[in-house]
Amino acid sequence: MRILVLGGDGYLGWPVALHLSGRGHEVGVVDNFARRQYDFEMGVDSLVPIKHLQHRVRVWEEVSGLRITIYVGDLTNAPFVHRTLEEFAPDAIVHFAEQRSAPYSMIDQQHAVYTQVNNVVGTLNLLYAIADVNPEIHLVKLGTMGEYGTPNIDIEEGFIEITHRGRTDVLPYPKQPGSFYHLSKVHDSHNIMFACRIWGLRSTDLNQGIVYGQETPETVLHPDLATRFDYDGVFGTVLNRFCVQAVAGHPLTVYGTGGQTRGMLDIRDTLACVELACLHPAEPGEYRVFNQFTESFSVQQLAEMVVDAYSGTAEIVHLDNPRVEEHEHYYRAAHTKLLDLGLVPHLLNSRTLTSLLSVVERHRDRVQLEAIEPTVAWRSTASVLRTSGAVRSESWAEAETSDA
Amino acid sequence: MRILVLGGDGYLGWPVALHLSGRGHEVGVVDNFARRQYDFEMGVDSLVPIKHLQHRVRVWEEVSGLRITIYVGDLTNAPFVHRTLEEFAPDAIVHFAEQRSAPYSMIDQQHAVYTQVNNVVGTLNLLYAIADVNPEIHLVKLGTMGEYGTPNIDIEEGFIEITHRGRTDVLPYPKQPGSFYHLSKVHDSHNIMFACRIWGLRSTDLNQGIVYGQETPETVLHPDLATRFDYDGVFGTVLNRFCVQAVAGHPLTVYGTGGQTRGMLDIRDTLACVELACLHPAEPGEYRVFNQFTESFSVQQLAEMVVDAYSGTAEIVHLDNPRVEEHEHYYRAAHTKLLDLGLVPHLLNSRTLTSLLSVVERHRDRVQLEAIEPTVAWRSTASVLRTSGAVRSESWAEAETSDA
Repeated sequence: MRILVLGGDGYLGWPVALHLSGRGHEVGVVDNFARRQYDFEMGVDSLVPIKHLQHRVRVWEEVSGLRITIYVGDLTNAPFVHRTLEEFAPDAIVHFAEQRSAPYSMIDQQHAVYTQVNNVVGTLNLLYAIADVNPEIHLVKLGTMGEYGTPNIDIEEGFIEITHRGRTDVLPYPKQPGSFYHLSKVHDSHNIMFACRIWGLRSTDLNQGIVYGQETPETVLHPDLATRFDYDGVFGTVLNRFCVQAVAGHPLTVYGTGGQTRGMLDIRDTLACVELACLHPAEPGEYRVFNQFTESFSVQQLAEMVVDAYSGTAEIVHLDNPRVEEHEHYYRAAHTKLLDLGLVPHLLNSRTLTSLLSVVERHRDRVQLEAIEPTVAWRSTASVLRTSGAVRSESWAEAETSDA
Repeated sequence: MRILVLGGDGYLGWPVALHLSGRGHEVGVVDNFARRQYDFEMGVDSLVPIKHLQHRVRVWEEVSGLRITIYVGDLTNAPFVHRTLEEFAPDAIVHFAEQRSAPYSMIDQQHAVYTQVNNVVGTLNLLYAIADVNPEIHLVKLGTMGEYGTPNIDIEEGFIEITHRGRTDVLPYPKQPGSFYHLSKVHDSHNIMFACRIWGLRSTDLNQGIVYGQETPETVLHPDLATRFDYDGVFGTVLNRFCVQAVAGHPLTVYGTGGQTRGMLDIRDTLACVELACLHPAEPGEYRVFNQFTESFSVQQLAEMVVDAYSGTAEIVHLDNPRVEEHEHYYRAAHTKLLDLGLVPHLLNSRTLTSLLSVVERHRDRVQLEAIEPTVAWRSTASVLRTSGAVRSESWAEAETSDA
């Protein structure tokens, strides 16, 4: 089938594009390179060097004989979106093209507004373009498990049956997102659900957990096909940070008690889930939600797993949590719909962690430890970014001296 | 107390500002005159002529001896918002400053994006400015009963206790809004709830029903103090439309079966509710929701009430519904919190309707019947506006000929 991957230059968009291409689909990628721009803004880099998109696509063709079409442009530009959909004529659109960092959205007013406008308007434009160009196009949208927050009841997949004062209805699952970024995804979800209702569009909202891993069967075919590995305080995810800290001989920094529990999944499962969603499209008018994760871990558990997997010695230190979130909470979330479609998960084990640690070791000379510092505080309305190598914040320095 | 009314030039913002001023509060109003701009865009006018804001404020001072400060500017301009809050130093902010028409938001992509960006960014900027200038400021935000949609269970005030698989939590009430405008209010609600959580802000979200009425104890003190009366297909509300149609000798146009049921309230109750919310502020960190309506009516009931109240003869005709909504549905919504604070409702009766009809009769020479036509169709992604007097759509003409 013809699949357009929006955000196809990013951490997940790129390996998803390769995977779908390798599986025989006709693939186009759309990107405005905003993710690369954030690196300039933050003064950081992916630990694993990445090549220009145009070069990557050329290498992919050399390696596989398969072509991927590139569309450079911004989803907030409505005519560009419309034109791209007309030209590529996709059967499915996989939509990764959003600002995806919670801390980035919490830097200050400008970054919060940017995140919500970029994500919400991009998706709105996409909905209009699909309705206009071809309402049959299946929109596979990346949401996040973070939309749900941590309610004291089981999390279901998008909808929940509620019996109240003797009557019953199935309603959208109540959302308690924890950042302006997560909020933007909740806004998107509501907008998409509505577009399916009024225009008969079909959409699958993949409420994804935290993804770990950097290598996929396709990216390892050539070094220039590598995808990003982010470990900095703004775009890095927790497992990457722990691996970098272990290899760099720095204590693993757990925020708060580390009891915060989240759904997670292997990058290879992301590829499989996205293809499963495409191959089994929603019905016309249907808005459905799949919770896309395979296991739940607390932050403390993850830190301990990295300490165990690391060949050297590593310690754990607890820092004040820059976020506003529960440290100890109930967490049980359904995730059966993708399993029902045939997903066979890669579970997190010492082998996965060893592979991740070896990625870090291969690139340890590129580690900027200062970049890991949690510079963005949820309770502050204007965080000062200190990600340039020369500057260190006091709290970070304190954490380092109080390691013992 | 010092109260800043955002959108203080609008249908409700203006009479609320007068009311609060008359009740002894120090009042400032903020407006960018977007509402007046929509009139130019649509080629329509308020049935009751309205004066410039500056003139109205001068007349108010002549009549009452009370001053109202004007701030002209746009909430999407963050420095303007910050400066205005610093300068006026409010205890409470009443926030009406949003694009408030569902059909306007459904015209096309541009109007949908405008509505969501204008409303969401304006409110985000406001939240940041409150957090920065003075987190004690109580934000009284106008939401809408339309955020809830029409679930098959009772609607509660903002939150609902859910028992699920043996566990219980109180969660945000699930929302099923019915237009990109209503969606923008849901987005706002989520953003405000989050800001209260992370910054300890205090906010009351008034989920208001459909307001009817044009005269308040303050606006009748001088003809130049009048507020708007909108009856056009884009900004007019259903009861106003019926009154205009009756007086103009046109059948009352009910969309679909008319079984659509909505919460409603008298404009004088809006004034009272807003002041009650200000006088009984939310606690620091508290986000609370009041359902602000006093009675529920179906569209068919409203049409019949107008027919009964009108001194002449009036007929009812059913048109295809331009919206996508249930025509027959369960509707029962809690609205006790404002009553608990002391609200004494003005209920809709023949006297209210007679007064509304007499407003229309005084201005019947200004009626543009063509403007009532429902030009915006929910299922279309690009409605052609035909509100200029010379142009009529076919469906409207058909409805007129099929009246008998």
